[in-house]
Amino acid sequence: MKQPVLPDNALVAHSLSLFRQRAPLIHCMTNDVVQSFTANVLLALHASPAMVIDAEEAAQFSAIADALLINVGTLTQPRAAAMLAAVNAANAAGTPWTLDPVAVGALRLRSEFCQRLLTLRPAAVRGNASEILALALQQGGGRGVDTQHTAESALSAAQQLAQRFATIVAITGEVDYVTDGERTLRIPGGSPLMTRVVGTGCALSAVVAGFAALPGDRLLHIASACRIISCAGAHAAAAANGPGSFIPAFLDGLWNLNEEALA
Amino acid sequence: MKQPVLPDNALVAHSLSLFRQRAPLIHCMTNDVVQSFTANVLLALHASPAMVIDAEEAAQFSAIADALLINVGTLTQPRAAAMLAAVNAANAAGTPWTLDPVAVGALRLRSEFCQRLLTLRPAAVRGNASEILALALQQGGGRGVDTQHTAESALSAAQQLAQRFATIVAITGEVDYVTDGERTLRIPGGSPLMTRVVGTGCALSAVVAGFAALPGDRLLHIASACRIISCAGAHAAAAANGPGSFIPAFLDGLWNLNEEALA
Amino acid sequence: MKQPVLPDNALVAHSLSLFRQRAPLIHCMTNDVVQSFTANVLLALHASPAMVIDAEEAAQFSAIADALLINVGTLTQPRAAAMLAAVNAANAAGTPWTLDPVAVGALRLRSEFCQRLLTLRPAAVRGNASEILALALQQGGGRGVDTQHTAESALSAAQQLAQRFATIVAITGEVDYVTDGERTLRIPGGSPLMTRVVGTGCALSAVVAGFAALPGDRLLHIASACRIISCAGAHAAAAANGPGSFIPAFLDGLWNLNEEALA
Repeated sequence: MKQPVLPDNALVAHSLSLFRQRAPLIHCMTNDVVQSFTANVLLALHASPAMVIDAEEAAQFSAIADALLINVGTLTQPRAAAMLAAVNAANAAGTPWTLDPVAVGALRLRSEFCQRLLTLRPAAVRGNASEILALALQQGGGRGVDTQHTAESALSAAQQLAQRFATIVAITGEVDYVTDGERTLRIPGGSPLMTRVVGTGCALSAVVAGFAALPGDRLLHIASACRIISCAGAHAAAAANGPGSFIPAFLDGLWNLNEEALA
Repeated sequence: MKQPVLPDNALVAHSLSLFRQRAPLIHCMTNDVVQSFTANVLLALHASPAMVIDAEEAAQFSAIADALLINVGTLTQPRAAAMLAAVNAANAAGTPWTLDPVAVGALRLRSEFCQRLLTLRPAAVRGNASEILALALQQGGGRGVDTQHTAESALSAAQQLAQRFATIVAITGEVDYVTDGERTLRIPGGSPLMTRVVGTGCALSAVVAGFAALPGDRLLHIASACRIISCAGAHAAAAANGPGSFIPAFLDGLWNLNEEALA
Repeated sequence: MKQPVLPDNALVAHSLSLFRQRAPLIHCMTNDVVQSFTANVLLALHASPAMVIDAEEAAQFSAIADALLINVGTLTQPRAAAMLAAVNAANAAGTPWTLDPVAVGALRLRSEFCQRLLTLRPAAVRGNASEILALALQQGGGRGVDTQHTAESALSAAQQLAQRFATIVAITGEVDYVTDGERTLRIPGGSPLMTRVVGTGCALSAVVAGFAALPGDRLLHIASACRIISCAGAHAAAAANGPGSFIPAFLDGLWNLNEEALA
């Protein structure tokens, strides 16, 4: 296993440029709390978000879309069935899909569902340290959506998870790690204020879903997604008076992000 | 068929003043992504939004409300049944209702549902060019919520749709057109930044639903709704650093909009 | 019955300090329109919000959480069943829960459901005057989510409701009243602009739910919640150009609120 390394800024800028140019259509099956913010984050990065949730329509749409996001934050039985239909259609059509296992471990329906989803070839998994640990170790615990572990403490579990399911795992926290089980990229930065605004992690997962659909080195593209959000977050936090003014500053920052700001 | 004409600014100002004075209660059955933004847009214009979605309650509420919006963005079978109950109750009570056929054409459930809704006497239909073309021609196509046609290219289809279903059709895009099949009003303005914020079109449909309930010339009132959103959007875009700061500027602009700003 | 009195500023500051220090995990089963804003208000006050809606998961989560909010704004039959499961689990685990009876009285499903919920020992009920009158008198009326009565006119009904169900009732409006049926606290302040932003009342209910879980004088803690929102609302309104800029100013204000601002 190689030591974690920083992604190269020029390569991150190239991923961003490719993303904006392709403007991927991203099918987001996400939780009820973050839909609007997720859409606005994707729109600020020039992508085209769409939320389609009926099982039949979701399957049709996953085949049309460039990428699919599955976020289990407000899972219900009918939503899980629609998500499965969408994942199967995505796999049949070759649409890469990304899993955000929100609060996995603490609650049974989503824990069992996430274990099942892992066997369906996700292109990427994005979670906080507690979620990645719960996924990897199939252990319960946690008290909800906030992590109780550092990203470092979940790195080894993330690497095993990535290898076992042939996927890319992103653990985000004070420092982010993105790993395919062999290579690991390390993305410092961000701001604690990002944890005081709902949906920054969920929106990152949607961005990861879109970057996973770019041609080229998927590990690097996903690390670029983390770096872009982390960088925009740090700039917005520096300019904000609190979590309220952070939100418009963050969206504006994503819109205006350039190679200079990334450096 | 008459040539498209611009709506008179003084008449737009009169519609706005009438809307604020009446403060209509608008029952919004809309998609999961834009509920909060839709409510805030209506509140900024002094209207009273309410979202009621259980089939029985929705039918009760449509009879009480001044206007009803049906937006199929995140349609499900239970939601479609509740929408039908609401539309039937609205028609029985004389409550005008407006259809926003989000992403119609690309997906089957909503495409069949929208064709059925068209036969239930909507007061107005508001969509982008791709959606209006799909509705009018009953053709599939499109890759989701963003248009791939200019409003101009859908004008003839909009006019036929309006005549066939005795309704008013608003196509919105770089230029908006509002037509009853005989008269057509043309509303330039707005800003490309409006397409980088989720829900500007959906919120416009809710505003159209409310303006359709005003006494007087419905075609002009609906064109006024388009002009008001377009004008507030252009002002907000001019003041914003990106889509993040656009949102508060847009809501403030609607709140403070006066005859001078409309001119 | 004692005369309404103002809560002491030092005690309000103490409640706030205790809330931030404990950072309660608040399970919000709330309506579709206000989920994001509710979460952001709680996060700005250092609390940890989580929205879990599947019946089985909601019951598991209510037992883990520090507090539970039940808001019936977009009630459906499946959501009502999940809410009942959560309330029963909360009661079994000793988790205090708060009811926000949005638009009760006007619509049957929620009116019957709220009467049933009242018998399940809520720690607190937060509503506007029309809602509290409808709950107490079991009368219909109202045209939706906005009140048509002053808080004063519902005070006597609130006191009776509090005594009958051994709960604490908060009526909010131009002036807020918080009563256990014996003692009544009076909280003036706030701003009319708060009624032009969707979810300020719903978010207050989530904050009330959290403050109801603090150790000590629950009546005072709930009055503190009202005072904190009212104070942050007045400051934000004074700084805002309209409802759009109110939102970030309000969240920033909650984040930065200190004893000085409360005085």
